[in-house]
Amino acid sequence: MTITLFDLAGAEPDRRFSPYCWRTRLALAHKRLPVETLPWRFTEKERIAPSGQGRVPVIIDADKWIADSWAIANYLEDTYPDRASLFGGEGGRALARFFNSWVDAVLQPIAVRLVVLDIWQHVDERDKAYFRKSREERFGMPLEQVQADRDQRVKELWQALTPARMTLERQKFLGGDAPLYPDYILAGMFLWTRGVSEFPLLESGDPIAAWRERMLDLYGGLARRAKAYAV
Amino acid sequence: MTITLFDLAGAEPDRRFSPYCWRTRLALAHKRLPVETLPWRFTEKERIAPSGQGRVPVIIDADKWIADSWAIANYLEDTYPDRASLFGGEGGRALARFFNSWVDAVLQPIAVRLVVLDIWQHVDERDKAYFRKSREERFGMPLEQVQADRDQRVKELWQALTPARMTLERQKFLGGDAPLYPDYILAGMFLWTRGVSEFPLLESGDPIAAWRERMLDLYGGLARRAKAYAV
Repeated sequence: MTITLFDLAGAEPDRRFSPYCWRTRLALAHKRLPVETLPWRFTEKERIAPSGQGRVPVIIDADKWIADSWAIANYLEDTYPDRASLFGGEGGRALARFFNSWVDAVLQPIAVRLVVLDIWQHVDERDKAYFRKSREERFGMPLEQVQADRDQRVKELWQALTPARMTLERQKFLGGDAPLYPDYILAGMFLWTRGVSEFPLLESGDPIAAWRERMLDLYGGLARRAKAYAV
Repeated sequence: MTITLFDLAGAEPDRRFSPYCWRTRLALAHKRLPVETLPWRFTEKERIAPSGQGRVPVIIDADKWIADSWAIANYLEDTYPDRASLFGGEGGRALARFFNSWVDAVLQPIAVRLVVLDIWQHVDERDKAYFRKSREERFGMPLEQVQADRDQRVKELWQALTPARMTLERQKFLGGDAPLYPDYILAGMFLWTRGVSEFPLLESGDPIAAWRERMLDLYGGLARRAKAYAV
């Protein structure tokens, strides 16, 4: 049975740029579960009201509504234990929560400052006022100013990525020889920015850049085929 | 058969304060492997020469010498698969490498600046000149100056610990319901500073402080009974 995923979209319905939705999209591909993605915009709260909250990703699986990328990953792991594991055991699941927190609390707050104006330029017309206002309140300055010094600020991201780099110098994926959910968590960040911005997040010689290429190739190039900039 | 562990010691032979040796000590306890620890000082390179390098932890297990805390953890996991797993599966092992890198590259470089003079005060007389010279070269300033602003700098550590805090607000250990090797990696940092310094690394209400108490209680209070300051 096909799972439905409400997937954040820009003005163009096939431009999908939520880091959290990408986590879910790749987790579904990992488990080889058929999915229908529905483009969704920030202001369409009523469409996902049965999930009990107002943000995506939201999935519907056999009439069950589930929200939140971490909750969805755990739901899929528990509901489809016969499919390839997302965590590689309970130790992997426990530590994936740490990894999820690291990307959310450390990396993405740096990354958003590098592309937030680019995001605004791609969001749907109906979302533009909401997006600018909420983000400018958060940063306390115009979006143009947040993003202005990104050539310097990107070095903070390179520095913050150090432990991922150390890991990927020694193993092919964060999950080891093959990808696991932590790979999808980190990939989500790169697919998000790539979906809306030409700004390169990595230097070309970075081992993380080579890993990102491997992530773009997974599942028949699922992520590589997405509407995005070639960075 | 008893495993031998060369364990960094201070002027008092029972003051053990290497974060890396603590990782190994707790990993051995986790696997319920009997151990004899031998106090070792920085300058005693010849005693561990058969390990092919000059730093601890080093273990001898049935005439095999193994160095490096990460290599030792993997050796123990692979050599004693019938004992409690240190990683909770291969996904846990793969992601533990990331966690190991995070503590090494992000946390401990902050923490060392908070206690480096206190370490110097506790190292063996034979190690004092070596320790001060090597560390002052690394920091480019006297140890007194490195540690001088620690009341402010500790806030960097609190901030850097955010993803661990987010995890430990939701689960009892980094490993889930019970500790796994990542718990020992992080505990090593706290046991290291506690062994040489009265300076508190955490605020009392921090969820990480409650976790640290649980770590001190493990294995009959193995870590709590160690010679250390009551912080």
